[in-house]
Formats: sequence, C-alpha cells, structure tokens
Amino acid sequence: MKIAVLGTGMVGRTLAGALSGLGHGVVVGTRDPQATLARSGPEATGAPPFSEWHAANQHILLETFADAASEAELVVNATSGTGALAALSSAGSANLAGKVVMDVSNALDYSQGMPPVLNPVNTDSLGERIQSAFPDARVVKTLNTMNAGLMVDPGRLAGGDHSVFVSGDDADAKKAVTELLQALGHRDVIDLGDITSARGAEMMMPAWLRLWGVLGTLDFNFKIVR
Amino acid sequence: MKIAVLGTGMVGRTLAGALSGLGHGVVVGTRDPQATLARSGPEATGAPPFSEWHAANQHILLETFADAASEAELVVNATSGTGALAALSSAGSANLAGKVVMDVSNALDYSQGMPPVLNPVNTDSLGERIQSAFPDARVVKTLNTMNAGLMVDPGRLAGGDHSVFVSGDDADAKKAVTELLQALGHRDVIDLGDITSARGAEMMMPAWLRLWGVLGTLDFNFKIVR
Repeated sequence: MKIAVLGTGMVGRTLAGALSGLGHGVVVGTRDPQATLARSGPEATGAPPFSEWHAANQHILLETFADAASEAELVVNATSGTGALAALSSAGSANLAGKVVMDVSNALDYSQGMPPVLNPVNTDSLGERIQSAFPDARVVKTLNTMNAGLMVDPGRLAGGDHSVFVSGDDADAKKAVTELLQALGHRDVIDLGDITSARGAEMMMPAWLRLWGVLGTLDFNFKIVR
Repeated sequence: MKIAVLGTGMVGRTLAGALSGLGHGVVVGTRDPQATLARSGPEATGAPPFSEWHAANQHILLETFADAASEAELVVNATSGTGALAALSSAGSANLAGKVVMDVSNALDYSQGMPPVLNPVNTDSLGERIQSAFPDARVVKTLNTMNAGLMVDPGRLAGGDHSVFVSGDDADAKKAVTELLQALGHRDVIDLGDITSARGAEMMMPAWLRLWGVLGTLDFNFKIVR
C-alpha cells in the first residue's frame, strides 16, 4: 500500500520506517522539504535533525505535504497536535478525499506552561476536528496513547500484552487501520466507536504524561483488562 | 479505624460494606438521613432504595454528613461529582481538618446530554477543587477509574492484575490510602503525584465510559503495563 506519513518528528520517522519495513511504499510529507533537510542540530524535542535519519533511510522520499498525500492510498497524520489542521490543509482536501487518514497526534498545548493542557478537549477532540475539516476523508484516531517505539514494536513490552484503540465513523477504514496495527504486532485493538470517541483516547494523555514522569520510562502502556 | 463514607449510592454502599467487612468502624453520611431512609422504589441510577441495603447492613449507621464526619478518622467522598462540594461543606471544614479525605468521585456533568462531559476538566479537577475548598483536609484522589465492584474486590478480575492510582499533596495520607487499597486487594497502586495529577485520573473517565459501552461489561479495568 502507498502510505504518506505527514510529520518529520520522532513519531513520523518511527512510523515511516516501520511501515516501510512491512513492505509498504512510504513517503514522508513536510511543509518545505528543502528547509527540513537543511536543518542541523537537534530539534526542539531533542531529536537528531531529520537529515540524519533521512541519510539512513534514503528509500523513503521526503516530499511536500501535497505531493506526499496525492499519491498515497493511506495518510498518517503524525504532525504535532497544534500543526495538524494546517498540515492537512497543505496536503489538500482533494488529496485526502476517500482516503483513510490515520490520526496519531495529540492536541497538547504548551502555551500555558507545564504540564501541557489539551485543546480541544471534553466536548470536542482533534480527531473530530480533522474529520469535520475534511468530511470526505475517512479519519481513524489511533496510537496516540503510547510512545512511538511501542506504536511500531508493541512486542518489546510484555510480549505485546497491552491495548490500542481505534475511533472513527467509517467501519472499513477502521478495519484497514486495525489490519495495519496487527501487522505491526498489536494484539488487542479495541474499537471505541465513532470519531467522537477520540475524546476518550485523547483525554488519556494527561494520565500518560504523569505516568511517564513517575515511572521514569516511555516503555509503558495501557492494557484494558477484562 | 473510624471511617465515614459520604454518599448513599452504589459506590458509597459498596465501599461502606467492604470497609466494614475489613473490621473498620463505618458510618454512612447523607444530607437528610430520614429522607434517605424514607425513599422507596429504585433510585435514578436504577439502584434499589437505600433502605433495602440498610436493612441488610444495620451495623452501619446512617447519619448526617456532619455527624458522620465529626467522629471519623478518614472520610470517603462517594457522592456524585456534582454534589461533592456541597456534601463536604455540609460535613463541615472543621470535621475534615487534618483528616484523610479519600475522594473517589467523578465530575460527570449530564446537563448537556449523553455522553456526559467532565466539569471541571483539563486545567482543574474535582480533586483539586476539594483540596482547595478544604485546605486543612488531606485529599487523596483514588478509585475513580473503575466500577464499584472492582474497587472493593479487584481480585475478581484477572486475579487483581490491574492498576489503581492515588493523587494527593500529603505523602502520609497517600500512604494511609494505599494501605487501605492493599487491604481491599489492590496489588498495583501507582502514585501519580500531587493533587493536580487527579486531572489525569479524572480524564480517563470518557474512555472508561466508551469502554463500558463497547465491552458490554462493568468488569474491566486499566492496567499500566511496564
């Protein structure tokens, strides 16, 4: 499958590498490919510059959001929560129409200091905003409740004995995403419901951030025991 | 230990019965004991009338919020989220001063229809509001992330292999609550941090409500796998 991963941060890189490793044709989308490749030194998140990762993954092309999305059959939104709607607008609604948009972002707002708050929250979610802004896309919220390393290698923690959620209005889109998740090693994919259930998944982030702090590791995840 | 459980709904009854079963001296607090006992027919939640439960648990006295709290060493807030601050005000700040207040409530607001939303949320939490309204109480948020049956009998699900959180500013109060939780059978008590971390625990409720819907059972819980 042709997949466009929008976003060049750690989540985007990790997903692009893993999906390519599964045999998919993957391109990464960014606002300005030249500028992204020209950046040197660590990013604001501490990640090494994208050019370093790209040098080791030259088979994964870096393109504009629009070029990446136009050829793709499935689009992954791995941008920051605050940049998601702008990135998808750059990709272009025509390039998203009819396609599965797998949204893995979190609407974290750091503008009021630490810890970040969610925006939108409670009566809305980023997943819903994306679906609403691009009504012809088939948005599925997933994977936002865990670290990037576990997104693509769940088996490295407890043999994969933990859970991942999908939320979305389109049953076929959720099926396609579920199959992709299972191919990555996810054993317990829970369908939370329509896209409004993304509120539930997104609102687990404040607990996740606290757990990161108190457990001192990113290698943890939620399991729904039943 | 002398324990006052404020609230006569299913959560209050279940906790009162279990804590009494552990050998604690338990009283239940309500706004108007006569009125509570006089109610017949199922409650709004579908629970049988309190009088029925009380007839089977006559060793657990029903008192006003203030009378219950005044004698107690530990106070459990098991009221509804919307009624919590009023109930604790009726209990009286002097009757809460210096005491552990174990808050298990969820700030669910049904006034805008279903699904309920949280209020407060994101930049505040019910746990924080209680601590702020009663600065001399030692508030510990806990148990709000699971069904009442699992609160008091975690072993009935996967042998107790799931998690419960505590949030609070007072280390000794969290220690006392942790010991109480362990006595009930909780094997994995995670200290999320100060009372502001109650936001994280409370914001798991929307996911919990969705999971209830899709799993079709109340017998599920979050486990933090690490």
